[in-house]
Amino acid sequence: MSSQGITPRHEDYSKWYTDIVQRADLADYAPVRGCMIIKPYGYALWENIRDQLDRRFKDTGHQNAYFPLFIPESFLRKEAEHVEGFSPELAVVTIGGGEELTERLIVRPTSETIIGYSFANWIHSYRDLPLLINQWANVVRWELRTRLFLRTMEFLWQEGHTAHATHDDAQEETMRMLGVYADFAINEAAIPVIQGRKSNQEKFAGALRSYTIEAMMGDKKALQSGTSHNLGQNFARAFEVKFTDENNELQFCWTTSWGLSTRIIGAIIMVHGDDQGLRLPPRIAPIQVVLVPIFKNDDEKAKVMPVVDALRQELKAAGLRIHVDARDGLTPGFKFNDWEMRGVPVRVEVGPKDVQNNTVAVARRDVPGKAGKQFVSREGVVHRIADLLAEIQANLLQQATEFRDANIHEVTGDYPKFQQIVEDGWAYTWFCGSAECEAKIKEENQVVSRCFPLDQPPGEGPCIACGTTATERAYFAKAY
Amino acid sequence: MSSQGITPRHEDYSKWYTDIVQRADLADYAPVRGCMIIKPYGYALWENIRDQLDRRFKDTGHQNAYFPLFIPESFLRKEAEHVEGFSPELAVVTIGGGEELTERLIVRPTSETIIGYSFANWIHSYRDLPLLINQWANVVRWELRTRLFLRTMEFLWQEGHTAHATHDDAQEETMRMLGVYADFAINEAAIPVIQGRKSNQEKFAGALRSYTIEAMMGDKKALQSGTSHNLGQNFARAFEVKFTDENNELQFCWTTSWGLSTRIIGAIIMVHGDDQGLRLPPRIAPIQVVLVPIFKNDDEKAKVMPVVDALRQELKAAGLRIHVDARDGLTPGFKFNDWEMRGVPVRVEVGPKDVQNNTVAVARRDVPGKAGKQFVSREGVVHRIADLLAEIQANLLQQATEFRDANIHEVTGDYPKFQQIVEDGWAYTWFCGSAECEAKIKEENQVVSRCFPLDQPPGEGPCIACGTTATERAYFAKAY
Repeated sequence: MSSQGITPRHEDYSKWYTDIVQRADLADYAPVRGCMIIKPYGYALWENIRDQLDRRFKDTGHQNAYFPLFIPESFLRKEAEHVEGFSPELAVVTIGGGEELTERLIVRPTSETIIGYSFANWIHSYRDLPLLINQWANVVRWELRTRLFLRTMEFLWQEGHTAHATHDDAQEETMRMLGVYADFAINEAAIPVIQGRKSNQEKFAGALRSYTIEAMMGDKKALQSGTSHNLGQNFARAFEVKFTDENNELQFCWTTSWGLSTRIIGAIIMVHGDDQGLRLPPRIAPIQVVLVPIFKNDDEKAKVMPVVDALRQELKAAGLRIHVDARDGLTPGFKFNDWEMRGVPVRVEVGPKDVQNNTVAVARRDVPGKAGKQFVSREGVVHRIADLLAEIQANLLQQATEFRDANIHEVTGDYPKFQQIVEDGWAYTWFCGSAECEAKIKEENQVVSRCFPLDQPPGEGPCIACGTTATERAYFAKAY
Repeated sequence: MSSQGITPRHEDYSKWYTDIVQRADLADYAPVRGCMIIKPYGYALWENIRDQLDRRFKDTGHQNAYFPLFIPESFLRKEAEHVEGFSPELAVVTIGGGEELTERLIVRPTSETIIGYSFANWIHSYRDLPLLINQWANVVRWELRTRLFLRTMEFLWQEGHTAHATHDDAQEETMRMLGVYADFAINEAAIPVIQGRKSNQEKFAGALRSYTIEAMMGDKKALQSGTSHNLGQNFARAFEVKFTDENNELQFCWTTSWGLSTRIIGAIIMVHGDDQGLRLPPRIAPIQVVLVPIFKNDDEKAKVMPVVDALRQELKAAGLRIHVDARDGLTPGFKFNDWEMRGVPVRVEVGPKDVQNNTVAVARRDVPGKAGKQFVSREGVVHRIADLLAEIQANLLQQATEFRDANIHEVTGDYPKFQQIVEDGWAYTWFCGSAECEAKIKEENQVVSRCFPLDQPPGEGPCIACGTTATERAYFAKAY
């Protein structure tokens, strides 16, 4: 156990994860099996994630709307693959207002169907296209094995749904939003995700093609952190989403959907966290700077607090998210550990000596111990802290990128070596993409293909499973 | 029918309301009975409402969190009045993951119970108090008669839940949040609400005292637009929410809850709308200024568009929410009607003559026809528009206040006159508050007491129903 009471990662990674979620007050289990309570600190993190994504969605021309929680059971049956994919996971309302319902209602697991129904009403002509909609909502999937943030029965997410006149327009949107997710993950969450296409076996139920951003966690497992789907005309046909084109001919629309959920919080924890607790990227941290006043008596307090208050105001005026830890009856050491555990990027300490010397102590969360602490002149400290936050943001991304790259191993044609690699890392290898090969690899190694990365050199090579010539390489890894 | 295809109010107020909601693209009915689809324009309005409220909640020390959608049925039974009040309105999940559930799950109609459960885990000592939590969420109440925004099976809202050490602290919080609602309604939504206490008959199921902000709609009916409840120790006892006080004695907490929902959009429509459509208060309007370029040919277009673009950038830089209506193939007249119908506060027209004269035409939505239109010099137009928006905001509030005050009638002891008043307005009268009198008035007039206003002169008088001496006056009105 660390001083924060967190199980070390090497001892039990899974326990380490749960310890952090609970002790950093991010979330807790609910009295309903598989559901979670997102606590204020965790929700503030989600609000920052939401705002950063929402800004990007609006900048790319999307509008938010809201569709019903309940979906008539008949809707789900309209797209064959879709209902097959989601049937085992549904929560069903059978009683309303004290009476048995004539048509049972599904609590939405995702909203392609009910939004497809609306789009059919909204879209008439090519002038109505593209239609670019996003929804922030809760969804429910009846999961048997749940873990806080990573897999919960109910979770919060956004789901984008768009309709286009042509396949190419839909494909372009699918890739644009995958790019938005990657941009968010890399530049806000400091997670060096890999963009790629899912294999046919791993794609969304009802999609033509599914794309993903995949991230490597601290235990080297992969986490699918956001997906973007080109749905082709599958849902448009099922819900008769049609438009008259410029030649006055009736056509089915081409649609997309894309989603990112509270699961990303799990990724943030596992990419950046260490044995002392969370490490939050400054750009999305609920608290960027915590100020800890240090004093032993009222006399010292009278000297310290005015400096702390002035500094708080200056930092706030600079647009930073600040918290002053003025709790009574706790030692500075306890407070330092507590804020380290909660992953606050920068801690500022102000004691009587600092006041005298016109300095403050600034400690960065990403560099442990004394190496990460410096005494800084009171003048210009706001700029120093702003610069430091940017430095921490970049450092977290760099650390995560180095860790990822050190644990991806290329392999060609050597199946035993492939098997060894995926025991403790990601394999990057030629893959024919067939269902048979995917199944063989899954059965023999408990891993599936994560994605065919968008960025791969041309060429060809032997499929790692069957040896036939493959034209693309894929990542394989154990996954959450 | 008006030129916008909206039924005039005097013809059919209810039809007028539905016409506006649908034609202004605020919302539409969903394929699930009683549910609504909030369309992008309606949702953008809700986002502005949410942001204005959220800011106020955070300024008063509250933190957002998120609790599960599903509540175990047993939880609701723990508070006797509460379960009695909500039982007829519940949606019940009986099947999950393909199997019959052993304990049925209620889709939350409100979250006092599940939050009570959490508070019991979170609160230990007086140091943990007050606990000030808010949640933005969807809730479901199985309503038989529904109307878009006003009463829907699923709606969006916020629900505040707080815990305190003493009755007085809880009462203070209850009144503080009632005040926040009133401040929001008056200063953002331009709705001159009246703050008051609900009668015992009309209070929230499980509350000690309920408070309300009541608004007068354009048809003189009342709409309860937000409520704040002192829950006493009722829920704390049911869920064992206890704390050790400063004397180390175990005490039950005192809790509050308060909520405001998408219903407020119905109030905004009915308080401000006219026969031309919506009229939105500038402070919450999704679009504050619409720019309509006017040209007949490419030559004119080439002159007009650079001015429109420059103006758009200036207005945007001034922090205003702008839209340029560059749609092809529509006449200016059509566009003017369309934006009037959508309630955009200010319309700016730029034609070739304006470019030549270095002017623009500025039309305000709250003053119909030519009286509301002026030609303004291009220089300083941004300041003029900003001032005009503030003027419109104030004017909408003033108009609504005058309308309200003209339709509230004081009556003392004269029951036939009371009956006449509530046929077409609000009665302000002495009321003993008894269940018998409330029931008599309700049965004979189809009205209930709206509230005992906070602000009322001291004194006493005969209860309008039974004639015994009453010490408070109440409002009575037909209501939504």
